[in-house]
Amino acid sequence: MTTELSPDALSGLLDRARQDYEALVGRGLSLDLTRGKPAPEQLDLSGELLALPGTRFSAADGTDVRNYGGLHGLPELREIFAEVLQVPVAQLLAAGNSSLELMHDCLVHALLSVVPGAESRWVEQERIAFLCPVPGYDRHFALCERFGIDMIPVPMTPEGPDMDAVERLVAEDPSVKGIWCVPKYSNPDGVSYSDATVARLAAMPTAAPDFRIFWDNAYAVHHLTDEPVEIADLLGACADAGHPDRAFVFGSTSKITAAGAGVAFFGSSPANVTWLLANNAKRSIGPDKINQLRHVLFLKDADGVRAHMEGQRALLQPKFEAVARILDAELGGTGLATWTSPRGGYFVTLQVPDGCAKEVVRRAAEAGIVLTPAGATHPYGDDPRDAVIRIAPSYPGLAELEQAIEGLAVCVRLVGYEQRAR
Amino acid sequence: MTTELSPDALSGLLDRARQDYEALVGRGLSLDLTRGKPAPEQLDLSGELLALPGTRFSAADGTDVRNYGGLHGLPELREIFAEVLQVPVAQLLAAGNSSLELMHDCLVHALLSVVPGAESRWVEQERIAFLCPVPGYDRHFALCERFGIDMIPVPMTPEGPDMDAVERLVAEDPSVKGIWCVPKYSNPDGVSYSDATVARLAAMPTAAPDFRIFWDNAYAVHHLTDEPVEIADLLGACADAGHPDRAFVFGSTSKITAAGAGVAFFGSSPANVTWLLANNAKRSIGPDKINQLRHVLFLKDADGVRAHMEGQRALLQPKFEAVARILDAELGGTGLATWTSPRGGYFVTLQVPDGCAKEVVRRAAEAGIVLTPAGATHPYGDDPRDAVIRIAPSYPGLAELEQAIEGLAVCVRLVGYEQRAR
Repeated sequence: MTTELSPDALSGLLDRARQDYEALVGRGLSLDLTRGKPAPEQLDLSGELLALPGTRFSAADGTDVRNYGGLHGLPELREIFAEVLQVPVAQLLAAGNSSLELMHDCLVHALLSVVPGAESRWVEQERIAFLCPVPGYDRHFALCERFGIDMIPVPMTPEGPDMDAVERLVAEDPSVKGIWCVPKYSNPDGVSYSDATVARLAAMPTAAPDFRIFWDNAYAVHHLTDEPVEIADLLGACADAGHPDRAFVFGSTSKITAAGAGVAFFGSSPANVTWLLANNAKRSIGPDKINQLRHVLFLKDADGVRAHMEGQRALLQPKFEAVARILDAELGGTGLATWTSPRGGYFVTLQVPDGCAKEVVRRAAEAGIVLTPAGATHPYGDDPRDAVIRIAPSYPGLAELEQAIEGLAVCVRLVGYEQRAR
Repeated sequence: MTTELSPDALSGLLDRARQDYEALVGRGLSLDLTRGKPAPEQLDLSGELLALPGTRFSAADGTDVRNYGGLHGLPELREIFAEVLQVPVAQLLAAGNSSLELMHDCLVHALLSVVPGAESRWVEQERIAFLCPVPGYDRHFALCERFGIDMIPVPMTPEGPDMDAVERLVAEDPSVKGIWCVPKYSNPDGVSYSDATVARLAAMPTAAPDFRIFWDNAYAVHHLTDEPVEIADLLGACADAGHPDRAFVFGSTSKITAAGAGVAFFGSSPANVTWLLANNAKRSIGPDKINQLRHVLFLKDADGVRAHMEGQRALLQPKFEAVARILDAELGGTGLATWTSPRGGYFVTLQVPDGCAKEVVRRAAEAGIVLTPAGATHPYGDDPRDAVIRIAPSYPGLAELEQAIEGLAVCVRLVGYEQRAR
């Protein structure tokens, strides 16, 4: 990422960056790129949901969705997402409004109950560790931190986590109980796991008999191109490899229908599903089946989901294109940054020179552009190279987004040239 | 409960009971009195909810309820239930669809995090025990059992739990960390706590610095008479007594609007609310605010809740009257049973001679009348006197309910006279 610059040339570039930054501050912007929130226009695509189910309150089997019960979730909703999430209907549960809740609860139940294959409750063990592919999703890391689960960073590659490192770590250390994976259009760098990665994850020997892959398939149908990425079926691969209980598959409609008022899914082996249901049965008499019926009536089937996601793509793609266009125009050839071109998902990862990410985020905030904190993509908020910035382009309007990315590019030039000039 | 009977008289009564039971079995009934489920007609009262919020998606403060965020829950919904649950709005959270989930999660967080006032996480302590007023609610007991929390039964009195016993147990044993309370129209015996009971709960010295009252105010507005019971404000009393963090208040609309698709509430001291929010923030990005807005638009205000509950009462009261009428006609004067006349809530408790409850439930099941398992009202499913049967009259239609209670009375006569004849 370094290019040779004469002292004069560098001085000129730095001067221009300083002027541009001053002008940027002078504009008094107030823009927010922090989180992967859907824009109002995206939520409008699901406007019909707000008046559903209308007068109907019977599920396909006659169940009154207004009453208690039905811990598995409505079969017709599970049918729709079985295909989307690559989980047999019988092994897929439909739950409340977020997959994060399900991930949290799976950790809680593994800590406080004995997960299939475990010798004891995780809470009784001296140390529990999870592998964390980095860059990764800060809310996964926050769950580990909250429960005292040690986090071991593993570098991401264009095919998923560095499997040599993963295989070595899980083989030698029985306290390594899990790995966080966002297997398609990963958060934040948009990587989709290759078939080889999935096969190795399923087949690798683990020192822990109760090792779990937390497969957060958050962006299963969140494509940004004409060529949807398909990933291999982890759950099937685990079963075929003789590790049927290894995969916990999660998904939700938070970024399909309504963020916070969608439905979430858990898919796994029969033993794991039975385990989760038994624990859930103490917590709940059943999920919100009215909301599940609402989603069935709105989405109809897996084709309905895909058609709906075309509408989402039509709104998101121009924003991702704008980010790429502006970064290319403003930072291309400077040697100051590289960035991802995701084929789906919600994020662009911007890589700046080592030691610059925090300062870029700080300067951007001073200019009214709020970014995800630098380091958030790493366990304990600690990006050892201080180089990764996550851009979340979905929420702002296109014009605002363009302003924000232009401003961000100014900050990258300012901080990058300042560093070189030191 | 015993009356003097000549052997001949007893023999005649037993013969008649046997004939009646034979006839009952012959009718081939299939009736279910197991759970406190609302009847379809009750759910119809909230029919409007199914098409709400319609086209609206803004909360009072302009928040887009379709998007992420808002961990506290919508202020306008909390406003409505602050009055109902006797909790200041600022200290009341509106959450997902069930208070059982909130109770579960409070236990989880106390086990895995340090609850305000605690010296360590509960999971690190050798023993954790909860006081369980009996008869009580089986789902409370199931939570304790699931988490390995020892249960200490405390007898109920007409004013609430036996406070002499409670005060003694909490004063001497620091491992006693909590008590389950259903303070109004309690499950199953319909008792409402007296002001003196509330005052003593708030003021009593506890050996545990982190003692908590799990105040499951499930039936706060679920009256069955013209004279609604009001209970004292526990949260305020705890603050006044210098124990501000002692009370966890729970409530929900499960038996107001839709069972399983309602909204639940948690109210407590500022310190406890901050603690729960901090833990919830790792689990969720926010509750289903669309459902919260739906409830605001439907219920409108606390008067709206009360008016709605008049409709519920109109449907429930005849069922409770039928239970009382039939039990009186069939069992009055036999000395075989006593039963409660609740002024609200969802249950009637039937007390049969010691050693008879299980057998009555078994005989009823053989005749096609399914009751809550005998013992379910006690920790570990163990009613030491085997005398308490919980009747849940809400779900069946009136005609079915009458059949079921008539059949139940036959079973009580059969089992009761059989016992006397031994």
